[in-house]
Amino acid sequence: MSTHELAITPRADDYSQWYLDTIQAAQLADYSPVKGCMVIRPMGYAIWEAIQKDLDRRFKETGHTNAYFPLFIPQSFLSREAEHVEGFAKECALVTHHRLRSTTVDGKAAVEPDPDSRLEEPLVVRPTSETIIWHMYRRWIDSHRDLPLLINQWANVVRWEMKTRPFLRTAEFLWQEGHTAHANSREAIEETLRMLQVYSDFAHELLALPVVSGRKSSSERFAGAVDTYCIEAMMQNGWALQAGTSHFLGQNFARAFDVTFQDTDGRRRLVWATSWGVSTRLIGAMIMAHSDDKGLVAPPAVAPFQVVITPIWKGASKKLQVLEYCERLKAELSSAFRVHLDDRDNIKPGAKYYEWERKGVPLRLEVGPRDMARENVFVARRIDAKKFPLSIHGIRSSIRQELDSIQLKMLQMATEKRESNTHRLADYDTFKNQVAQQSGWYLVPWYDDAREEAAIKAETRATLRCFPLEGQEEAKGLSCFKTGRPATHMAIFARAY
Amino acid sequence: MSTHELAITPRADDYSQWYLDTIQAAQLADYSPVKGCMVIRPMGYAIWEAIQKDLDRRFKETGHTNAYFPLFIPQSFLSREAEHVEGFAKECALVTHHRLRSTTVDGKAAVEPDPDSRLEEPLVVRPTSETIIWHMYRRWIDSHRDLPLLINQWANVVRWEMKTRPFLRTAEFLWQEGHTAHANSREAIEETLRMLQVYSDFAHELLALPVVSGRKSSSERFAGAVDTYCIEAMMQNGWALQAGTSHFLGQNFARAFDVTFQDTDGRRRLVWATSWGVSTRLIGAMIMAHSDDKGLVAPPAVAPFQVVITPIWKGASKKLQVLEYCERLKAELSSAFRVHLDDRDNIKPGAKYYEWERKGVPLRLEVGPRDMARENVFVARRIDAKKFPLSIHGIRSSIRQELDSIQLKMLQMATEKRESNTHRLADYDTFKNQVAQQSGWYLVPWYDDAREEAAIKAETRATLRCFPLEGQEEAKGLSCFKTGRPATHMAIFARAY
Repeated sequence: MSTHELAITPRADDYSQWYLDTIQAAQLADYSPVKGCMVIRPMGYAIWEAIQKDLDRRFKETGHTNAYFPLFIPQSFLSREAEHVEGFAKECALVTHHRLRSTTVDGKAAVEPDPDSRLEEPLVVRPTSETIIWHMYRRWIDSHRDLPLLINQWANVVRWEMKTRPFLRTAEFLWQEGHTAHANSREAIEETLRMLQVYSDFAHELLALPVVSGRKSSSERFAGAVDTYCIEAMMQNGWALQAGTSHFLGQNFARAFDVTFQDTDGRRRLVWATSWGVSTRLIGAMIMAHSDDKGLVAPPAVAPFQVVITPIWKGASKKLQVLEYCERLKAELSSAFRVHLDDRDNIKPGAKYYEWERKGVPLRLEVGPRDMARENVFVARRIDAKKFPLSIHGIRSSIRQELDSIQLKMLQMATEKRESNTHRLADYDTFKNQVAQQSGWYLVPWYDDAREEAAIKAETRATLRCFPLEGQEEAKGLSCFKTGRPATHMAIFARAY
Repeated sequence: MSTHELAITPRADDYSQWYLDTIQAAQLADYSPVKGCMVIRPMGYAIWEAIQKDLDRRFKETGHTNAYFPLFIPQSFLSREAEHVEGFAKECALVTHHRLRSTTVDGKAAVEPDPDSRLEEPLVVRPTSETIIWHMYRRWIDSHRDLPLLINQWANVVRWEMKTRPFLRTAEFLWQEGHTAHANSREAIEETLRMLQVYSDFAHELLALPVVSGRKSSSERFAGAVDTYCIEAMMQNGWALQAGTSHFLGQNFARAFDVTFQDTDGRRRLVWATSWGVSTRLIGAMIMAHSDDKGLVAPPAVAPFQVVITPIWKGASKKLQVLEYCERLKAELSSAFRVHLDDRDNIKPGAKYYEWERKGVPLRLEVGPRDMARENVFVARRIDAKKFPLSIHGIRSSIRQELDSIQLKMLQMATEKRESNTHRLADYDTFKNQVAQQSGWYLVPWYDDAREEAAIKAETRATLRCFPLEGQEEAKGLSCFKTGRPATHMAIFARAY
């Protein structure tokens, strides 16, 4: 289906449908024949590649190397860490056979699992890789000299989700998972917070997402972690979206997989661990945070094309001239930017604009004979639909300035939205009323209590997103907005994806 | 286990064991708890990253974009193309359940697949993605304007192999698979050969593998292809290894998945297809082609570290001076090369050399107070164990020259080996005797006949590797070395991995 045929539902009418329409119109992803699994189309995958490239550089600069661990995990591994199996057993894809055999169904040739190929022990398709990795770490870690061990993996993982939504929640998704091993708790906690900071910097700088860094309450912790830290992003409808997590795992996995090291004093000690990950979910966060009723708005830093050039001509003689001029322009810009020259001649300029607008390209350059004569290009800016001429002289640095300013502007706009939709409240009744009518984040004084947290979720569907790392000192002397007990934390409650 | 503890079996004693020892000693891969699945360790994965980076650039320069398709394929899809299911049904991992439940085994808590979570239709873990991709192409291709569609995927795939060997044959492996759709057969065949050429260029330039490009006989064709082209590499024991394939699929998958397009004349026609792939097998080819009894020899273009600097000092006062000097040297070289400074002070220089030699680093630089005084570094070259001083002045360009010359030399050496181990023969009895005693490639005149081919395999274990693209004209007027019939091809027979 051509991108032109699909109308995008306005956000105000149906925010969820708007999200799905935007993805289809920008050809970012498509539905697959397997329930809950999506296809990431080239325009969506290019965004993932930009994310990967930047994060991978940040991981390597902080001393990590990449490796690859098996997709399949023996089912018994999952039970080794009690909380871990609790968290993942209910949503696993299980491999039980290794061969198909011929059969007939309603008289037609078909295939079915060959019963003779049943596996002795079923295999879990990895939902996350702590167990298999810590099994390997036992082989690799023997002495304090082997620590720290700082490994990252780029991989696909599977969690059998019932309610799925492209990018935000799918049965299979792409992600990276860092798994590190340390000689002591201090270093492991430092690593946990270092990677949280890497995620936060990345989200601000690349995706223009003004995420808030925080710590999760015990009910929202990763299954098997001592502490889970997160970055939370605000979507345009005021909902929160967990955009990345970094876990301090203590010695839980070292204990479960018997991973010890000989310390400098000659004694054997259990190893300390962290794990941290972000996924293709980030693409969903980016779409939801910035796009508008016309379609995708992509931050320049990750846009598949940062600049699209549209030549305009009438008559064959002009066409050659204009195209040649555009080719030169493209060559000049290509050394610095991701540029596409849309030279299709069976599509009118207006239709091209419409298409690139929906695909979220930050800058569209229109070049016709008149622009050539004036030594100009005519620019259309996606974020505010402003149109203006730019001189062809020094075009590379003008485009650089434009893209930088768009990137900054998008972060500013998202920050303003976040601030104006973050409400400070001190009493629960006001909260209950407000959260029902108006979504947003609620920053409240809180006495940490899992049962009260569950009660709030049941009553309002809002969840405790995090205890923000900044501003916790404000809680001192305040009373919990729910129970009135002395506040232990400042907490953000919100509806969330 | 430390790399020092493992002795490497000499090639002459046991070539297979030498290969496994080399992988362990260089810490390229390790065995996993799941039969046939390997762990790619950081030193191995870095080689894969170098391969990916270079190939990805070549794919994009030839107009391809990346996308991502689901890991799971409905089992019924496999049967849609008759030969395809024949080729893959016997080695599939099948997902049949989506939840674990608690149970007890011998009185201990355990888990098992929850019978209530059985899937209506089992899912195949992709062994290759033609079927799911052509299912999607049906949604995306409607008009000649949608063609050609040039998509590549970097992914993991699973084939349930019984006899596995790290990198060369594993149940799960990493690869790329290109899948393209074209309006006519000519363009599809051009694409098939273009990507074969990309593979051949890449193998020569990056891996220093003088591969031979050829076409497969019908018995060795990909399941579902009209024609399979390949690049074949020679290992040091004279065996062949298929290092990449490019398939012309005709209209087989378009027919199976009903993918048609409206042509310029208004008529609907079936789409033409290609697919092509290389995998982590390339790392196995690289190891087997170049390494020696001391361990890995990595071509500079893909070596995880191209240069390792080893500081040498006696006494703490010298240590600081030497380290500072080495840090400056590293900084200067890092802008152009992958450099590692081995500043561990609990390991002696000799042990460091030994370690980096086994890990295949092309150049090791030794720097001590005497070298500093002479404004030299002392170089050890991995391929020939030559040691010589290099002036610190202009060191970057001397290192560049050294690495380039090593890369070239490795290709030359491998080419000479291939040529001296490629035997031209005209009669079968000689072949039968020789192939039993001395491995190598046998270039012979051949009358194409699948039954005769099978007979040769049964009798000698040698297989028809390919009809080389170059030199086919030589067959004219010759008689088949097996049957005496007029030769239709020049063919390479060899033992193969």
